[in-house]
Amino acid sequence: MSLRTGADLRTIRERKPLVHQITNYVVMNETANATLALGALPVMAHAPQEVEEMASAAGALVLNIGTLSEPWIHGMLLAGAAANRARVPVVLDPVGAGATRYRTETARRLLDELEIAVVRSNAAEVATLAGQEAEIRGVESVGAAAGPELAEVAARALGCVAAVTGPVDHVSDGQRGCAIANGHELLGTVTGTGCMATAMTGCFLAVRPEAPLEAAAEALVAFGVAAEDAAAGARGPGSFHVALYDALAALDPDTLDARAKVE
Amino acid sequence: MSLRTGADLRTIRERKPLVHQITNYVVMNETANATLALGALPVMAHAPQEVEEMASAAGALVLNIGTLSEPWIHGMLLAGAAANRARVPVVLDPVGAGATRYRTETARRLLDELEIAVVRSNAAEVATLAGQEAEIRGVESVGAAAGPELAEVAARALGCVAAVTGPVDHVSDGQRGCAIANGHELLGTVTGTGCMATAMTGCFLAVRPEAPLEAAAEALVAFGVAAEDAAAGARGPGSFHVALYDALAALDPDTLDARAKVE
Amino acid sequence: MSLRTGADLRTIRERKPLVHQITNYVVMNETANATLALGALPVMAHAPQEVEEMASAAGALVLNIGTLSEPWIHGMLLAGAAANRARVPVVLDPVGAGATRYRTETARRLLDELEIAVVRSNAAEVATLAGQEAEIRGVESVGAAAGPELAEVAARALGCVAAVTGPVDHVSDGQRGCAIANGHELLGTVTGTGCMATAMTGCFLAVRPEAPLEAAAEALVAFGVAAEDAAAGARGPGSFHVALYDALAALDPDTLDARAKVE
Repeated sequence: MSLRTGADLRTIRERKPLVHQITNYVVMNETANATLALGALPVMAHAPQEVEEMASAAGALVLNIGTLSEPWIHGMLLAGAAANRARVPVVLDPVGAGATRYRTETARRLLDELEIAVVRSNAAEVATLAGQEAEIRGVESVGAAAGPELAEVAARALGCVAAVTGPVDHVSDGQRGCAIANGHELLGTVTGTGCMATAMTGCFLAVRPEAPLEAAAEALVAFGVAAEDAAAGARGPGSFHVALYDALAALDPDTLDARAKVE
Repeated sequence: MSLRTGADLRTIRERKPLVHQITNYVVMNETANATLALGALPVMAHAPQEVEEMASAAGALVLNIGTLSEPWIHGMLLAGAAANRARVPVVLDPVGAGATRYRTETARRLLDELEIAVVRSNAAEVATLAGQEAEIRGVESVGAAAGPELAEVAARALGCVAAVTGPVDHVSDGQRGCAIANGHELLGTVTGTGCMATAMTGCFLAVRPEAPLEAAAEALVAFGVAAEDAAAGARGPGSFHVALYDALAALDPDTLDARAKVE
Repeated sequence: MSLRTGADLRTIRERKPLVHQITNYVVMNETANATLALGALPVMAHAPQEVEEMASAAGALVLNIGTLSEPWIHGMLLAGAAANRARVPVVLDPVGAGATRYRTETARRLLDELEIAVVRSNAAEVATLAGQEAEIRGVESVGAAAGPELAEVAARALGCVAAVTGPVDHVSDGQRGCAIANGHELLGTVTGTGCMATAMTGCFLAVRPEAPLEAAAEALVAFGVAAEDAAAGARGPGSFHVALYDALAALDPDTLDARAKVE
């Protein structure tokens, strides 16, 4: 795998790709601000009347089922199909898959009906989707940390890149893959940081659509490095959360690759 | 009344109960982050297809009518009934009851059709529901501060614990009750702090479901103490808001009971 | 034009007008907190069952199409008509007009069917509505900065005050107008600051409904000065965002007019 996180971040900031996000109510402001802080342009739109037009004009489409309902699933399917037709890469965040049948089935349906480039999730969500045992409480993965095998198995089962985040992140396309040790435990104390990682994946996919494995890994490197910087002066989850946007905006393309902890 | 706020906070952090919240669009991120900062696990889900499954698996259910509409009321009723069947305690925040007939009637309907453990609200909202005179502007209670009588009368009228927050909070089950003087006036300058107090009530109810009066009081003590800590270095509503999450996460179970201002 | 920003801010803080907002999911918390920080009372309500009652009781109504869908448009039309009947001024934020046909047509429909006092938007959105060439990417205006002509042309075409924000803001009623140079470039790095400016416009309209041109200009002066103060200690978009609420709450009516950069 050939990561060039710094160069791709520079490209994001130059091109300012539009990242169309159909996401949950809880994190909309947060993923929009993270997208903007990184250097891309977020747009939220979910109505069937406009999602096809918006997705077709975007650099990437982010689908996130965190507070799903029938009208929103309808919007996701329309947007996803339009993105597929326009060769706009799609990243899926199957928030809470495994926690209710509705979420599991919706995530499966999106994977079945759409061409998904990357699934970004926690260990329990992707394990559920890959048909493995998993323990989830609400939208939190509980139980043992996942290793590289899970990402590999999931990538094969789902037919796309799997980006599984946790204390160490694992990214795989079923054959190649890597582990990313950037990040900070404070990420687990703020809601929506997983969703932000998914939005970051959309940003990198927008400038590297031909290499979803690399794009997913670069997104997690950049986000993880920003989290490390944000944690430096944080006094808890609130100040960490605020500093995370400052850190994303301050990411230095010149030092990013040297700071990547990738194996 | 026997409060053991420190011990129950410790239990929350150990058990990490799932607190299912069907709440308003304005505060979803904020109540999720407050729940997480205290030490519990939040989950937002409102679709009829999944609320019963989610509520049944939760430690507590929080219903908040701050931006209500028909589909959401439907979800609240389904979730509430499932919670009742599973003996999961339910807390209701009747945001804006009194401001429009729709809100007043919806709050009454939820109280009629569901077994509510605690109503957490401001003075005007609960006075409206208890059939008393009240002045509300939008979702803000205006007019004179409420005393302990209101909580007592409301608890009897509504058949549940009433937790009425304001400069001094009053909690009552209609017979027993207490006043809680913790908190800070900056709470009134940030939207959703009332909703956060309701979410905190859900967290404490999840570990003390058999004692809703005590759980409601403990939640207000913990939240009030965190507000006092957050106010210490705040320069206004923005920095106070951020510090509130830091303070909730930093709450020390060992000193919490000594800092409680309860009568 | 006779601006009296300080005096009107003082009136807002004394009267605490209710500002009813039907806005997008992304910024609800942010515009509510900005409204509260300035000194007014925000309320969010979108259900057809209550919007007429709420809008009629408000000091101003804010309509924002940032994440629109059919039920919300229905609520906006009902609320707007009720506001018109009750002589409550209405401000429209046509977020993303030009980005999709649905947004453009919805903005036009609201302008056609309702009496709008002020349209607050970026250059591309209002240019689209005024029938001019515009380039928009998602909800961001891209391309050349707009001058005073655009506001003037738009005000005439739309039959209301046009408040066009950008590096320099331009406000016009088609005949009179001014340019406002307050503000800071960090505003462009946080999502929803345009929506906040619209909410601020609603606050000033609520206390000066007879002079929408002046109210719109005063709102942008106040918001711009707050942004300047917030930028002073900011380390990036996150800390700027937080400081913006502190700065709005700390705005000094006595110095506001002297700090206005109005031409």
